[in-house]
Parts: sequence; structure tokens; C-alpha cells
Amino acid sequence: MKPLDFKKRQSTIVEDMNKSEIDLFLITPSIDFGYLFKSFMSISERLICGVLSIHDDAKIIAPSFEKENIKNHTPFDDVITWKEEEDPFVVLKESINFNVKKIALEPTLPFEIYTKLKKQFPETEFIDGSSIIRKQRSIKTEAEIERLEEAGKYTIAGMMSALELLKPGLTELDALKIFQKEMTLQSGEPSWVLVQFDENSAVPHGPPSERKMKENSVVLIDAGTMCDHYFADITLTTFYGNVTDEFLKVYEIVQEANDVALEVSKVGVRCEEVDFAARKVIDNAGYGQYFTHRLGHGLGLEVHEEPYMVKGNKRQLVKGNVHTDEPGIYMPNKFGIRIEDDVLVGDKSKRLITFDRYLWK
Amino acid sequence: MKPLDFKKRQSTIVEDMNKSEIDLFLITPSIDFGYLFKSFMSISERLICGVLSIHDDAKIIAPSFEKENIKNHTPFDDVITWKEEEDPFVVLKESINFNVKKIALEPTLPFEIYTKLKKQFPETEFIDGSSIIRKQRSIKTEAEIERLEEAGKYTIAGMMSALELLKPGLTELDALKIFQKEMTLQSGEPSWVLVQFDENSAVPHGPPSERKMKENSVVLIDAGTMCDHYFADITLTTFYGNVTDEFLKVYEIVQEANDVALEVSKVGVRCEEVDFAARKVIDNAGYGQYFTHRLGHGLGLEVHEEPYMVKGNKRQLVKGNVHTDEPGIYMPNKFGIRIEDDVLVGDKSKRLITFDRYLWK
Repeated sequence: MKPLDFKKRQSTIVEDMNKSEIDLFLITPSIDFGYLFKSFMSISERLICGVLSIHDDAKIIAPSFEKENIKNHTPFDDVITWKEEEDPFVVLKESINFNVKKIALEPTLPFEIYTKLKKQFPETEFIDGSSIIRKQRSIKTEAEIERLEEAGKYTIAGMMSALELLKPGLTELDALKIFQKEMTLQSGEPSWVLVQFDENSAVPHGPPSERKMKENSVVLIDAGTMCDHYFADITLTTFYGNVTDEFLKVYEIVQEANDVALEVSKVGVRCEEVDFAARKVIDNAGYGQYFTHRLGHGLGLEVHEEPYMVKGNKRQLVKGNVHTDEPGIYMPNKFGIRIEDDVLVGDKSKRLITFDRYLWK
Repeated sequence: MKPLDFKKRQSTIVEDMNKSEIDLFLITPSIDFGYLFKSFMSISERLICGVLSIHDDAKIIAPSFEKENIKNHTPFDDVITWKEEEDPFVVLKESINFNVKKIALEPTLPFEIYTKLKKQFPETEFIDGSSIIRKQRSIKTEAEIERLEEAGKYTIAGMMSALELLKPGLTELDALKIFQKEMTLQSGEPSWVLVQFDENSAVPHGPPSERKMKENSVVLIDAGTMCDHYFADITLTTFYGNVTDEFLKVYEIVQEANDVALEVSKVGVRCEEVDFAARKVIDNAGYGQYFTHRLGHGLGLEVHEEPYMVKGNKRQLVKGNVHTDEPGIYMPNKFGIRIEDDVLVGDKSKRLITFDRYLWK
């Protein structure tokens, strides 16, 4: 696979900072930190902070005893350290030798850290850096698309192996473990799974339970595994045993909504229009009240990220966006059907991975 | 075990809010959210926010399709919902029917959410709520101490089973999996593990590697599992094979530092004094330069929380604090020894769990 270019990611951010006269961009451990500095470390009570600047090279502030770890796990050498008894915010302030008018913060940076930064930079304007970092993250490079496709392949392969192991009597929790194991065997990375049988499938995002699979059961699996930290997110709804006419009827409507959304999605189309297109199919079929969530969301280093396919989002899709296409019909106390693909936006958008969904045939 | 009293936790916070004239305390999904509302859900792009108020009952703001999930997973009924196409911050604002002068925010609340709250409440003062929530969390109730003790028992039992399975030729990564599995078998909950052999043990918090255990090896394990979300954190350093005189000599110094810190820790003593006491033992033995980190940290729903046993922390210990006691001596290119216990503070502090550490005998 093509390598990920972390220096390029940083320099693109710095270009945007220059346009908006932002002196510093501060990033504490987070997905965005991993995106920019390669290391997906967890945030802790000891300050670690990536510093991008329009006046200076990128650097990382870190506890002195973590210096070697940081150097080994990022491609960046410029680590400024603080000792256990020092105030890391003073060390950060002292490492900056220019006048700081405006600082952008990584959007998930904890409020507590902001209040400590504000004490060191009382005259500085602090702004949310989400528009800058999220715009860049939502436009996938070729290297990222390769990883997303790979994650999709692992996910489908794992799902198919796991489906072979399902049998009546297994609980949702049993099934969850089976799917998780089979997907992780494919990817070698963590996997996440939601499993719902029968009436439970009518509650979107309901937690797995002790409910058992029957001789004839609706099986809804929403799952994904990773490739190099990039996620897949695929929902498969199938029928175990003798499929009912009602299931088939509703399934075809959801599949049509999914197909129509894919056709409508392309460069220049507003996100909400893709949602509207799928919703219209379901409305026209008389099931509008049962499609209770947005059509989809962006996908990448997070399972949910920009762009969001939801009413009110006027943003236009651009080449390289990746979003889910996941219409659903949820009929309380009966069953729910969701069909979810991962879509790469282009002049003609396409599914990142395809497979035969009609597993009961 | 005694039940955890979530209503009491909330009412204690509200008492403190009254004293400081804080109208609202806002808590997005986080450890603190789990502490106050029982559910340890992950934060996502869809706003979920617990609202504590001095004028009104507690409530939770959540997406409408999550309402049942929230009701099922918290003991709190008052859920105010927003629809996919609504602005949740407007819904939150409209649910408040009194004048809001001051809002405290949960300390890890993302900066991006703060900026959206600030738009809805432009005249309101926002403060970091960490002193309120962290003070309460650092004083453990009997029900919490039961869980911490239980987590300690599971951890020791898992460690002892895992030690039986170690043998020369295994890598640190192999050993890590063995410890994780054996601890989780005991607790039924997730476990975390650091394993370091020989020279690697001289790097505190170094990552596990492909380094193999030898016929004679230093084995350092820093690990813990959970009981009902409460962590244990125990470090065991032992010698596999024929123990060396140098190891024994350094071991006794670290053990003495650990014992002295336990004696010094008690109600009314400043946190840094406990660190100083252990450090003095190691300094006097001539190894001061090799004790490169603080003595310890608080322990509870997080592995690292208040109070921190570090130079500069003048805070006095109070009854019910729980902290680690983990002096270490790290000799580069040779080996490191750390001995870590979990200590419950009282008029005389005590170890939450004890076991025979001299495993090479």
C-alpha cells in the first residue's frame, strides 16, 4: 500500500492557518493527533501536545520520560519535554518566541486544557480548529482509499465466515463474539459489531442481548474492522430460515433507497440531497415514518465523521469524500432492515466494496 | 456488593454548585458521565449531555432515537430529545427556563462543544468543573472501596496464574496476552498489561516488544483488571531463574521506599510529602537519579486520577482517597524494578490487597 504522508498533512494545515492568520494549531492526543503525528496514543493527565505553527517547525510537547517513546512512534524529532514537577503549560508558553494573536484548538481538546492554555495566553483569541482539520480529513487520498477498501474486504470476509457459524439458539451476544473474532482474524486489528435478532432489529443501535436466534429469524449485523486505523462500516440484514413475504417486500424498498442514494451522490451535490433521495423512495412506499435516522455519515479514521448525509447539511460533496449509504425501515415489535454500503464520491460515486446481499436465496 | 448511589453523587455535586452559585453543570459522555449517570457510553458527534441544575431536576439531552437506550441504561427518566435535523444546542437552550449566570463544564468536554454552548449562552460565564467533580470522585465510598478491593483480588489471581505459564523463549507480546487473558478470566472485564523483560524494564512505560524471556530474566509486569468499571493497578517485578545479587540489592531499596511511603501516607499529609519520603530512601541509597517519575496517582474509575503523589502537590490527603505507591529504580541498559501497591488512605493508610512478592524464593 502507498505510504501515508504525515509531513504533507501538516503542511496543508499550515497553508490553511496562513490564510486565516492562525499562529498556532494545538493538538492533544486524539484521532486528529494520530492523523497529523502518526501516533494514536491515548490522552492522559500528563500533557502531550502537538504544535503546528506558521512561524516555526512542528513540534511536540511531552513529559521528559516519554521522549524516547514519542520519537520512536512518530516521524517527528522535535520533542520539547517537561519534568514531573514542572507546569507543562509554562514550558509550552516558553517554547513560543513570537507574538501569538490567534490559536486554533483541535476540536476534541478538553475544556480543562483550554482553560489552562488561556491562562498562559490571556490576550490570545482561541478558535475551534474543526473546519480546518475536518475538511482535510474528509477528502481521502489514494493511500487512504486503499486502506478503506482493504478494511471493507476484511469486514466482508469476516462477516461471511461468521454467518456460516450462526445457528438457532445462539444469543446476540454469542453472535457478536463470533463476528468480532472472524473479522479480527482477517484484519489483525480491532473490530466492532452490533447484532440484533427479530424484534430487536427494530431498534436502531440497540445493545446486544441474551435474545436467541430462532429457526426462522431476521439477523441484522452492523459491523466493521480496520486497516491501519481506517474503518469499514457495513450493515447486513438477512433472513435465516424461511424468508417471509413482508421481509422481502420491505427489503426491496430499502435496497431501492440505497441504490437511489448511490446514484444521486456525486461531486457538487449537497449532502442533504442524498438523504432526501433515499427518503423519498421510502416515503413513496408508505414507510416514511419508520426511517428514523439520517442516511449516512463520513467514514475514515472514525466510524462517524464528516460529511453527514442529513437534512440541513447544505455542504456540497467533493471528490474523495467517503460516506455511508444506510437507509433503514424499523417496524416496532416486528423487525428492522438496514442496508449499508461505504461510498467513494466522484463524478460518479461508487461502492468501495460489493458483495451478494441476498444470502437467504 | 453495596449498590452505587447515583442520586447521592448528583446531589453532592448540586450542593457544591449552590455554594459557588453555579447554575448548571454540563456533562457529555465521559468517565464523569458514567460516574454521575451510570452509563459509560462513548462520546459521538450526536450531542448527549447530562444537565445538573440548582433550580431544577437532573436531565439528559439526547438524540430522539436513543431515548429508550438511555432510559434502559441509566436510572434517570427525564430525557429531552432532539431530532436528526434539529440543532441540539438550541434544544438544550430552550429546555432551560431560568437565567443562567454561570455554567461549569465537565473537564474533558470537547472544546468544539464549548464553542457551540457559548453561542447559545453568550452572556454566561463558563468555568472548568474539575475541582467539584474530581474532589468527589477522589473520596471513595464503601461501595467503591469494595469494588477496588475486588479488582485487586482479580488482578493478583490472574497475575499468579499467568506467572505459572511463563517460560524462556516467550516474547513480551506473548506474555502480555497471557496476563490479559488470565486476569480477564478472573474479572470478566477488560484488563490492561505492560510486560518488560531485562534491559527493557529500565524504560518506564516502554511498549511491549518481540524481546524474549531468557533462562534468567528480570520480569516486570504492570497490570490491572476491573470490577464494575473500577480499576486495580499493580506492578510486580520478579526474577525468573537464578536471581542476581545486584537485583536483590536494588529490590530491597525499592521495597523499603514502598514501605516508607505507606507509613507516611495518612489523613492530613500533603501528597508531595509521600513522594518525598520514598524518594529520600532511594536518594540515601545512592540511586536517586534512577527514580525518574512521581511516586503515584489516585485510582478509581480511571487508572490515573486525583490525587497525584508528586512534588508540588500541596493537597492534603483525606479519608477515602486511594492512591498507588510505586517507587522504581531504572538502570539504563541493565534493568528496572518497580513495586506498586494500591493504598487506601485513613488515619493509618493500608494496602487494598497484599500478596507475597518474593516469587523467586
